[in-house]
Amino acid sequence: MTDDRDPTPDDVIAAAERIAPFVHRTPVLTSRQLDEAAGAQVFLKGEHLQRVGAFKYRGATNAVQSLTDDVASCGVAAHSSGNHAQALALAARTRGIPAWLVMPRTSSAAKRTAVEAYGATVVECDSILTAREETLAQVLADTGATEVHPYDDPRVIAGAGTAARELLAEVPDLDVVLVPVGGGGLLSGTSLAVAAGRPSAQVWAAEPALADDAARSLHTGVRQPPLPPTSIADGLLTSLSDRTFRIVRDHVTDIVTVSEDEIVEAMRFVWTRLKQVVEPSGAVPIAALLSGLVPGERIGVIVSGGNVDLDALPWRSAAEQRT
Amino acid sequence: MTDDRDPTPDDVIAAAERIAPFVHRTPVLTSRQLDEAAGAQVFLKGEHLQRVGAFKYRGATNAVQSLTDDVASCGVAAHSSGNHAQALALAARTRGIPAWLVMPRTSSAAKRTAVEAYGATVVECDSILTAREETLAQVLADTGATEVHPYDDPRVIAGAGTAARELLAEVPDLDVVLVPVGGGGLLSGTSLAVAAGRPSAQVWAAEPALADDAARSLHTGVRQPPLPPTSIADGLLTSLSDRTFRIVRDHVTDIVTVSEDEIVEAMRFVWTRLKQVVEPSGAVPIAALLSGLVPGERIGVIVSGGNVDLDALPWRSAAEQRT
Repeated sequence: MTDDRDPTPDDVIAAAERIAPFVHRTPVLTSRQLDEAAGAQVFLKGEHLQRVGAFKYRGATNAVQSLTDDVASCGVAAHSSGNHAQALALAARTRGIPAWLVMPRTSSAAKRTAVEAYGATVVECDSILTAREETLAQVLADTGATEVHPYDDPRVIAGAGTAARELLAEVPDLDVVLVPVGGGGLLSGTSLAVAAGRPSAQVWAAEPALADDAARSLHTGVRQPPLPPTSIADGLLTSLSDRTFRIVRDHVTDIVTVSEDEIVEAMRFVWTRLKQVVEPSGAVPIAALLSGLVPGERIGVIVSGGNVDLDALPWRSAAEQRT
Repeated sequence: MTDDRDPTPDDVIAAAERIAPFVHRTPVLTSRQLDEAAGAQVFLKGEHLQRVGAFKYRGATNAVQSLTDDVASCGVAAHSSGNHAQALALAARTRGIPAWLVMPRTSSAAKRTAVEAYGATVVECDSILTAREETLAQVLADTGATEVHPYDDPRVIAGAGTAARELLAEVPDLDVVLVPVGGGGLLSGTSLAVAAGRPSAQVWAAEPALADDAARSLHTGVRQPPLPPTSIADGLLTSLSDRTFRIVRDHVTDIVTVSEDEIVEAMRFVWTRLKQVVEPSGAVPIAALLSGLVPGERIGVIVSGGNVDLDALPWRSAAEQRT
């Protein structure tokens, strides 16, 4: 059962305290070369260095640790083939409760193995959304587990906001906090964290142009349906929910979009100059900075994750170039 | 002209003070997953995060900053197609003096461009060693510049040792300090730093089996000629000098060798689990740890660099696998 409240700035503060024993307090990274290229002082909150390699562990942990013992004992479940699946699996294992992850049959073996390595049960289904939802509903009915949605959940949103809260604690005088946006969990949580800790700072987001439903929703004032998602930023293919759209509409200054080429270029920049493995979704806000789309002198960025298939990088290898 | 003294532990201490204003004090990274895989507590000194992406900047800076104003004004020169070339170029620019780098015509355009971006002059030559040496001799004669050898120079060795000195300052109670070995500059400098700061710790090195002249030299007690070098760890293809061999022989407990596959596997481990871009040479000591070749409960490792050609990674891309 998904909680129906909208989360508040106080929920982020409470989440930060609740999850502190379980999450890494990730470092804030800076780079002279990035500052020069962006024309601003940039502070990267390195959530690619978070457990399971993504900020998603924060929200999953907050949700799992919020449950009463009775409810928790029945376990948790979600349908996800992304970072949330690993995050929920590890958060459940940490609390010692079962987890079921509904994943499409087309998910890579690597993703499935990673989830199972954390002790969770993978339940396969067809890849269309209705099949995932029906399979999850059946799992919930069979097990009594609690659903933890990847982003449309106030506990998950509040947990996601703790990354920005830590960033503001370390670098208080930011003009702008910039994050990638897909379903809007990170963006909503970040908005609440900024409202709590640095209300004078603007919140911006960056989105792949090929998956720009959040930008179109903000600009039209009406939540827009997603396009058929095709971006290499595979963590950002989800679309805003009513809840995340409400929070985004009330707090976010603007959402800018970047091309696939800009995402790849930003990813290469971070790998080459900063020596950090970030995933395409995590490179999206860097792409916005490198393209000069975001104003501000002191800009904080949540680097959302670093889970990349090294066998399928979005650039051509030397061997391929020879063919 | 190359200085002929052997460097001492005190030279490392002096170098640390001399270069402190110019170098990054790089972070010490830890990873639960690495500790589990290695069966030890491992502390990685992240020199891939050093300026120019390699520990080489320490030695180059120490050499350049050691020069008197008169000598410095004539500039510095070296033959190198590796990280030392960029390191010397930036160290010279930082002091505001000219630098000449002799590079084989076969060097990649990217390497040449990187050196020139730091304001140094690239002098092309044929790739055989005698051509490089003759070209460098001519540059030195023409310009009056001072040679800064990539490793066979006491100032460079002392500078290289400052990475281990910083590591020991942060993590004093190490059993073992482990580094990669090529020409032996980092290994010699590290040996002196350990002698100065933690004489009870053992110094170990790891070397590609395909370029194992240092291991054979240590094991036979006689400096061995290099094999024709073929390892993907292209920073470790050089061989010990008389000077570095003397220091290694006197201080190093053992040198272990790793296969090419082990190097690639270790590199993938660090990229995937630690989200750090390390070059093959930097992955060599990690490979030794993952293969259980180095004893010790608290092991410090100098991760030597992170300069990798992303278009020529040592694993097959998905596109290649399909062909």
